[in-house]
Amino acid sequence: MTHDFRQVERQRGRAVALAGVLMTALCAALVLLGGAGGGAGADLARSWPTYVGLAGLVLLFALSMQRQHARLAALEAELRAAAVREATLGARFSELSFLFDISTQVQLRLDLQGMLDLAVQRLLACLEAHQSSIMLLDEASGLLEVRAVAGADAGLVAGAVVRPGEGIAGHVFATGEPLALTPEVMRRRFPAETKRGRQIGSGVCVPMRFRDQAIGVVSVTRAGGEPFGDLHVRMLAAFADHFAATVVKTRHHREVLERVRRAA
Amino acid sequence: MTHDFRQVERQRGRAVALAGVLMTALCAALVLLGGAGGGAGADLARSWPTYVGLAGLVLLFALSMQRQHARLAALEAELRAAAVREATLGARFSELSFLFDISTQVQLRLDLQGMLDLAVQRLLACLEAHQSSIMLLDEASGLLEVRAVAGADAGLVAGAVVRPGEGIAGHVFATGEPLALTPEVMRRRFPAETKRGRQIGSGVCVPMRFRDQAIGVVSVTRAGGEPFGDLHVRMLAAFADHFAATVVKTRHHREVLERVRRAA
Repeated sequence: MTHDFRQVERQRGRAVALAGVLMTALCAALVLLGGAGGGAGADLARSWPTYVGLAGLVLLFALSMQRQHARLAALEAELRAAAVREATLGARFSELSFLFDISTQVQLRLDLQGMLDLAVQRLLACLEAHQSSIMLLDEASGLLEVRAVAGADAGLVAGAVVRPGEGIAGHVFATGEPLALTPEVMRRRFPAETKRGRQIGSGVCVPMRFRDQAIGVVSVTRAGGEPFGDLHVRMLAAFADHFAATVVKTRHHREVLERVRRAA
Repeated sequence: MTHDFRQVERQRGRAVALAGVLMTALCAALVLLGGAGGGAGADLARSWPTYVGLAGLVLLFALSMQRQHARLAALEAELRAAAVREATLGARFSELSFLFDISTQVQLRLDLQGMLDLAVQRLLACLEAHQSSIMLLDEASGLLEVRAVAGADAGLVAGAVVRPGEGIAGHVFATGEPLALTPEVMRRRFPAETKRGRQIGSGVCVPMRFRDQAIGVVSVTRAGGEPFGDLHVRMLAAFADHFAATVVKTRHHREVLERVRRAA
């Protein structure tokens, strides 16, 4: 699309040049008229409608050019905005395809920890994130536990626990409401987190829901760059719901197997 | 975007009206000049540069208007095309999200037949298809068998078998190559299928691959309407690969369970 914009710029340049030529021609015509009139006072009285008419034409032409320019500029801006929207949507489509592929790869693992580790690593690459983590509810303790983390500070975050309702992840878990995090949202809704010196550029935190019941939380953060948008929230929510189903099913199969083994 | 186009049309209408006013003014100026000249032959000889100059201006102005119109029309066409591309990409994004959701719903089923039936029904709705079907390889017989079908002629197609390599589904299974079907592709590559009176508007047929090995085929067809595109092929291929992993895993779990039960 950049090429088209450049073409439009060139065309506009030619339009301005053409306007210049026209103006020069108008001036030349006026001078010719003046010369033809012989410069006498009676002549001016006779030919003033011509001068007024020509001056009016110049004015009309200038106004028309200005309007055309404004219109072209508006159209160009629209085209540019459309190109940006299209590129953005294309990027989101690729990311969603990637998330779908990650879900397929996760499916091929048999052990839960292997699935979790694979997911956080792939999320990091897919969403160009700084850090990604998955927390699961430990039903025995009633706490959310970081079960897998990839990216920055992975060592610090691994194994951390949080009470449902506390902090960002606890809030998302308790409310089941996906969140797009920006520095502004952090300051307004989670001042305590900001005070703790957690500086993020932008982030997405979504619940892993299984039949409308949260079983964990998926978070990704970016230190800088382009902030996450609403489509990212929707995409990651779809991924997290799918992942919740996978986790529940894996646990279910393990339980069935153990029951059968115990019965033996 | 329709609104924008209408606005552009209105602006263009105003531009044409303005051009009309300018032309009228030019003619009026010419007439005034003629009147001022008194109509004498000597006068015409004296003022011909003025007439030529004005005629040149009219010509330049007309050319300029025509160029502006052509430019505006080109920009409008581009904007319209961009809007169509954006809408199309948006529709594909929604369909891919839907396919992701279907995969999640399929995950929640425990029995293979339930998964297959749910998948074909949801595919029908998601892709506005006329018929959708899933074939799986029966390892005992070495034949592809229609295990689930939804939509038109479901009764006729259910349970049908095909040898790998034969027909469209057999070809896709044997080569592992996803196919976008159009009447033209059907005629050129699968004349036998066309002769059998299978008339489809458009279709997509993709292999279900598990670790690069096809285990079945997913097909969707539309009787008419908008034909399926390349993005549909990519999306359905991603879905089919995911579904293959789900099928293999479900079978694996069943086998493990049976082995444990037998060992008991």
